Amino acid sequence: MKNILLVILCTLLFVSCKEEETEVTSAIKSDKDYTQFVNPFIGTSKMGHVFPGATAPFGMVQLSPQTNFEVMFDDENKYNPETYEYCAGYQYRDTTIIGFAHTNFSGTGHSDLGDFLVMPTTGKLILDPIKTKEGNKGFYSVFNHDKENASPGYYSVNLESYDILAELTASERVGFHQYTFPQSDSAHIILDMVYNVYHHDNKNVWTFIRVENDSTITGYRQTKGWARDKKIFFAAKFSKPFSSYGHKKYDKVKYDGFYRRFNQYENFPEMAGKDIRAYFNFKTNKGDKIKLKFALSSVSSAGAMANLEAEIPHWDFNQVKDETKHKWNSELSKIEVETIDEDQKTTFYTAMYHTNLSPIIYEDADGKYRGLDQNIHTSDGFTNYTIFSLWDTYRALHPLFNITQPDRNNDMIKSMLAHHDQSVHKMLPIWSHYANENWCMIGYHATSVIADAMAKNVGDFDYERALEASVNTASVRYFDGLGDYIDYQYVPDDKSHSSVSKTLEYAYNDWCIYQMAKQTENIKVAEQFKRRSTYYKNVYDTEIGFMRPKMSDGSFRENFDPMDTHGQGFIEGNAWNYGLYVPQNIDSMIIMMGGKERMTNQLDSLFSMEIDDKYIEKHEDITRDGIIGNYVHGNEPGHHIPYLYNWTGHPEKTQERVRMIMDTMYGPTVEGLCGNDDAGQMSAWYIFSSLGFYPVTPGSAEYSIGSPLVKEAKIHLSNGKNLKIIAKNQSRENVYVKSISVNGQMLRGNILTHSDIVDGGEIIFEMSSKPSTVIE
Amino acid sequence: MKNILLVILCTLLFVSCKEEETEVTSAIKSDKDYTQFVNPFIGTSKMGHVFPGATAPFGMVQLSPQTNFEVMFDDENKYNPETYEYCAGYQYRDTTIIGFAHTNFSGTGHSDLGDFLVMPTTGKLILDPIKTKEGNKGFYSVFNHDKENASPGYYSVNLESYDILAELTASERVGFHQYTFPQSDSAHIILDMVYNVYHHDNKNVWTFIRVENDSTITGYRQTKGWARDKKIFFAAKFSKPFSSYGHKKYDKVKYDGFYRRFNQYENFPEMAGKDIRAYFNFKTNKGDKIKLKFALSSVSSAGAMANLEAEIPHWDFNQVKDETKHKWNSELSKIEVETIDEDQKTTFYTAMYHTNLSPIIYEDADGKYRGLDQNIHTSDGFTNYTIFSLWDTYRALHPLFNITQPDRNNDMIKSMLAHHDQSVHKMLPIWSHYANENWCMIGYHATSVIADAMAKNVGDFDYERALEASVNTASVRYFDGLGDYIDYQYVPDDKSHSSVSKTLEYAYNDWCIYQMAKQTENIKVAEQFKRRSTYYKNVYDTEIGFMRPKMSDGSFRENFDPMDTHGQGFIEGNAWNYGLYVPQNIDSMIIMMGGKERMTNQLDSLFSMEIDDKYIEKHEDITRDGIIGNYVHGNEPGHHIPYLYNWTGHPEKTQERVRMIMDTMYGPTVEGLCGNDDAGQMSAWYIFSSLGFYPVTPGSAEYSIGSPLVKEAKIHLSNGKNLKIIAKNQSRENVYVKSISVNGQMLRGNILTHSDIVDGGEIIFEMSSKPSTVIE
Repeated sequence: MKNILLVILCTLLFVSCKEEETEVTSAIKSDKDYTQFVNPFIGTSKMGHVFPGATAPFGMVQLSPQTNFEVMFDDENKYNPETYEYCAGYQYRDTTIIGFAHTNFSGTGHSDLGDFLVMPTTGKLILDPIKTKEGNKGFYSVFNHDKENASPGYYSVNLESYDILAELTASERVGFHQYTFPQSDSAHIILDMVYNVYHHDNKNVWTFIRVENDSTITGYRQTKGWARDKKIFFAAKFSKPFSSYGHKKYDKVKYDGFYRRFNQYENFPEMAGKDIRAYFNFKTNKGDKIKLKFALSSVSSAGAMANLEAEIPHWDFNQVKDETKHKWNSELSKIEVETIDEDQKTTFYTAMYHTNLSPIIYEDADGKYRGLDQNIHTSDGFTNYTIFSLWDTYRALHPLFNITQPDRNNDMIKSMLAHHDQSVHKMLPIWSHYANENWCMIGYHATSVIADAMAKNVGDFDYERALEASVNTASVRYFDGLGDYIDYQYVPDDKSHSSVSKTLEYAYNDWCIYQMAKQTENIKVAEQFKRRSTYYKNVYDTEIGFMRPKMSDGSFRENFDPMDTHGQGFIEGNAWNYGLYVPQNIDSMIIMMGGKERMTNQLDSLFSMEIDDKYIEKHEDITRDGIIGNYVHGNEPGHHIPYLYNWTGHPEKTQERVRMIMDTMYGPTVEGLCGNDDAGQMSAWYIFSSLGFYPVTPGSAEYSIGSPLVKEAKIHLSNGKNLKIIAKNQSRENVYVKSISVNGQMLRGNILTHSDIVDGGEIIFEMSSKPSTVIE
Repeated sequence: MKNILLVILCTLLFVSCKEEETEVTSAIKSDKDYTQFVNPFIGTSKMGHVFPGATAPFGMVQLSPQTNFEVMFDDENKYNPETYEYCAGYQYRDTTIIGFAHTNFSGTGHSDLGDFLVMPTTGKLILDPIKTKEGNKGFYSVFNHDKENASPGYYSVNLESYDILAELTASERVGFHQYTFPQSDSAHIILDMVYNVYHHDNKNVWTFIRVENDSTITGYRQTKGWARDKKIFFAAKFSKPFSSYGHKKYDKVKYDGFYRRFNQYENFPEMAGKDIRAYFNFKTNKGDKIKLKFALSSVSSAGAMANLEAEIPHWDFNQVKDETKHKWNSELSKIEVETIDEDQKTTFYTAMYHTNLSPIIYEDADGKYRGLDQNIHTSDGFTNYTIFSLWDTYRALHPLFNITQPDRNNDMIKSMLAHHDQSVHKMLPIWSHYANENWCMIGYHATSVIADAMAKNVGDFDYERALEASVNTASVRYFDGLGDYIDYQYVPDDKSHSSVSKTLEYAYNDWCIYQMAKQTENIKVAEQFKRRSTYYKNVYDTEIGFMRPKMSDGSFRENFDPMDTHGQGFIEGNAWNYGLYVPQNIDSMIIMMGGKERMTNQLDSLFSMEIDDKYIEKHEDITRDGIIGNYVHGNEPGHHIPYLYNWTGHPEKTQERVRMIMDTMYGPTVEGLCGNDDAGQMSAWYIFSSLGFYPVTPGSAEYSIGSPLVKEAKIHLSNGKNLKIIAKNQSRENVYVKSISVNGQMLRGNILTHSDIVDGGEIIFEMSSKPSTVIE
């Protein structure tokens, strides 16, 4: 079926080639190498939470160095608050690497994963990654950024402690290691099954390794981390037979009983336990390359082995590196931009890169995957994905996918519907990864992703089924204050924390369901959810002019600080920011809040006020790095706010602010992300804003105009059409939009529709240094 | 394919019906109810290690009460030596039941399992099974044997503490509970996921429960017990919806982080953790029956649900009870016996019952099962079995299967070959259960099971493949002294414990491989293993006349006590008993040990000597109950010894001893087993001996004549033939065999061949009160 579609697609592409041959050709295979503009180190300092390692676009294997492990625990082995910086296992300031793990989140605000840490060493075998209590050195290596390189699909570093050059690449399901050793009679490759991102020894449930022969190993790990019941399997092949091997077990309970008759720790091909570290020994000549292909599966080690054989049947490291680079270029070249300077291009393409790292493909080559019910399912008519950080990504990442990755977004929605079907709650994912729901954050924003795709006519998923799944999700009374929300028409603050945030987001999500119901002509559901979509009004306190926590007796909460991010009825935001969250009805919100002028003033204050240090978090998401005045860009609840001026009659202020945010909150350096990239949401904001528009209300087909950063962009759409965006008179100073034409027609107002984008053609922004309240 | 075979088989049966109509009819469906002679309580006292619960023949579900849990740990929560008595979870002397577990070993000498303990209660909800540290009562119930019943496929007990009648039955993969409640506003059914046989809280790795709807639950448990990596899944349905439910978690690490927004402990349909106990609440009227169908799978909860629907799609408890009773009668009636008294019949049919409890069927209804490599496999052309207590069962149980269960034995051998293929060691099972090798005991006796089937022409497994698997197994140098055995031609005592036992058993196993090689005409392997089969000679010390541990320098060990069971180079036996273990060449052994007369005297001494208390174990296998003189019947190494007199010219002494052993070591009471039934081996010894012959040398097609206990036996063979055994002049006193005729031909010597048995016909023993050294 897929093949037939491909033929049809190719035919369509070929037909359109006749008109615009050059663009379409570059959509399929760009002559230009856009991977050169990606710097995977951007955001690896401080709170970006991204990783520099090797991965294919949306690949399950995300193989990346793990640094300075010891910071995660203090001397008393207690959780160190600095740990939060290590969501993706890597901090640029660090000087030691403990190995390369095969799974990593990109940019998330909480962590897990770090599966199957591999580390090559030489000399005396050391099995502790970090300095031991007795003061012995761990197996970590010192490294230097001068001898570290990263590009899409490739990472290399010189492990100075051992004089080993480590190189990594990856296909979707297989990590490919290449280690160039010095001469050594005692070379080792360690497989650390203990290491987890965040916790080095208390997430493991069980681990298992089999040495199938002198160069093949298989096994699995089960963890109880953020995913409570996560199972991940592997199959791996070494290019050179190991001469001997063994493991150390750290479990308190030993299983030596009936094993006492053999030495189960050396050259015994089965290893099992809660916490084990295995090693494989080699003798190497100087320059010997030992390669390791390491495949993953959620199903079984047999599945992992089949993935390995399907994706990388050979030993040509450079071939895989080149193929993956090519895959990246295909993704990156979907939007070809010209910018004012090279730095902007680097920032732009690195953002593009970051929007292609999750959700990840989560099925074996044969379509089998582990479902939320822990049973094995087969994807039928779609590719299954996981890692849905939906509270973040519904805002701009999934809307961006509706332009750059409509097929994948369709598959992601089908994956969400499968999740619903497998859910014992009959709920769509909230924040899910690896066959688990971790329930992180609030709302049920899968409804937004679905409604947005429906509004934009993306995908071929079943609309009726999607509506039913959404209604089911919105009806689970025990979920997070939802029963109270339904009964009280707001979430009472004495019954749930973050009561205002929940009320606002439920109301928005319900509007999304209302949109779906309209589209499927389900009048009853439409009426019900239209009503629910207005509940935001019930938590607005006209007396103080802020959204405010309301008690179950109908009174507003007494003690209330609209500046404070904690315990004020909001989550990861304060009333100033989060209180402006009514994307489904911005006009009504503005009227409710006192009209356009008052809102303009409020937004001006938000962006300019000085805030006290006490409201700043040291280690979490609201840091000085991500703040302009009291506006927080480093976290999501305010991402639409700069665009709100468009509704108050001051588009020029939107234009000014979005350019300012792009200039100050993003950049081409390791500190180039002002907060968690949040699985691509922060980067997706940048891409949209760079192009001059933003999806303020996912679930509608409209985009709000900002101020393009690019000089020119060509978007190669999967329907074979192409959109050219031109910003005439673009410069650092000319941040204001004087006029816009769409295919020669002057645009009235400050809204673009999805068809303006995907029908292709040309949008011309006339830029100016002079602000104007009207786009002509 | 199976269906076609069935048709052929039925046709053959029908053809032979013409000759012997009455017998064949009873082979298919006996008019007589032999289940009435089975008392599942026999052996439930002391060291029999059998359970009284409900199971189908060879069923995966073996649903049985677990008693007096508290004995397993002392006040300081330390392992109690009494625990060993609880291998099957039940001791007859006990007065309390803590619930009904779905898996139990039958008669084994070590334990595991006890999965999914279910307990109905009323009144205040109690989730601790036993008295808490604070002195609160556990959820256990007092019970009385007067109100307890057990028969094949059925168990019932009155749970006096709650006035609940508990009834259990089972199909192969589904346990069926029926609880008759009193009137109660607060009735509960507890699902305890913590309980394990032996250990109440330290075998669990992870547990998971989903409440699919108001009457259906699914989930799994993973344990790290004797099976290091055991996973078992369930799906269960209640006949009545529960009104509410919840669970308690005993893990130290809590997962309340992102769950804090809901109450995950009450009416929240996902439960996960290392140690959890769930409860389901009901309101009941007096006499309300709540039924529970509880299916197992090694594959997945989806597999368990499919098993449930396939095997018990209805709610008729009595129907399942009747069907399972019928299955039992089909198995039991394969040998119809007339005995001197009813007690002997009870002992005989209970022994028959015990030989049909393991190995168990270990695959889903669709043929899928979890293999030793932890991957999911599908049985192709066979039914997969597990629980191979081979050091015990190769002696008489599998030989008995070659008469009573040739098709199952064929499947068991195919299961062993699958195990070999999935083994990373490329070894046949040693002692394996639930997709794990537990390595218990010594030798590689799967080779004996295979050689015995080949010698007797049983089954259609691939002989070449079986030989290859056996040779592979016998070539794993790191296994249990095997490399040294190959190099030194004995196991040096300074390199391995139990060195003599290993040497003797390897030599016997190698003789089995030699037999296979001869049969497949593999001369090279035959010569190699013929040579290895003589290595028993290398540990015989002519100076002292005993097998004796030998050091790697060729000298015999200095300190050596042939009476002691511990640390003398033997395992679970002393030199007096174990030193006579050369079943493959008894004549040579007797010559080596000084000839027939000396051996006769030695055997006489063995059976008559007084032994000191210091050689008796209190809690393990060598207790006074199982000893005659210094002969140990309660454990396996001597099971062939009573028959050795046949080789010394004194068959009358064999006849005398086997009748004595049957009289004193077996009986129709709860203490009717003198030691562990060992997965049916002890019972299989009894069945063979009752019929008048015994497979002293599995791997040959010969049986050694003893003294029949039965007056008459009809064996209905699966080839459609029937064998009648008649013991003329049978009485308590007439234990001696005067003569034997096989189909009218007088038998010379004291050997029957397998064809004498399976060709059918009539064997007549002429019994006498007068001993004779010659069977006429």
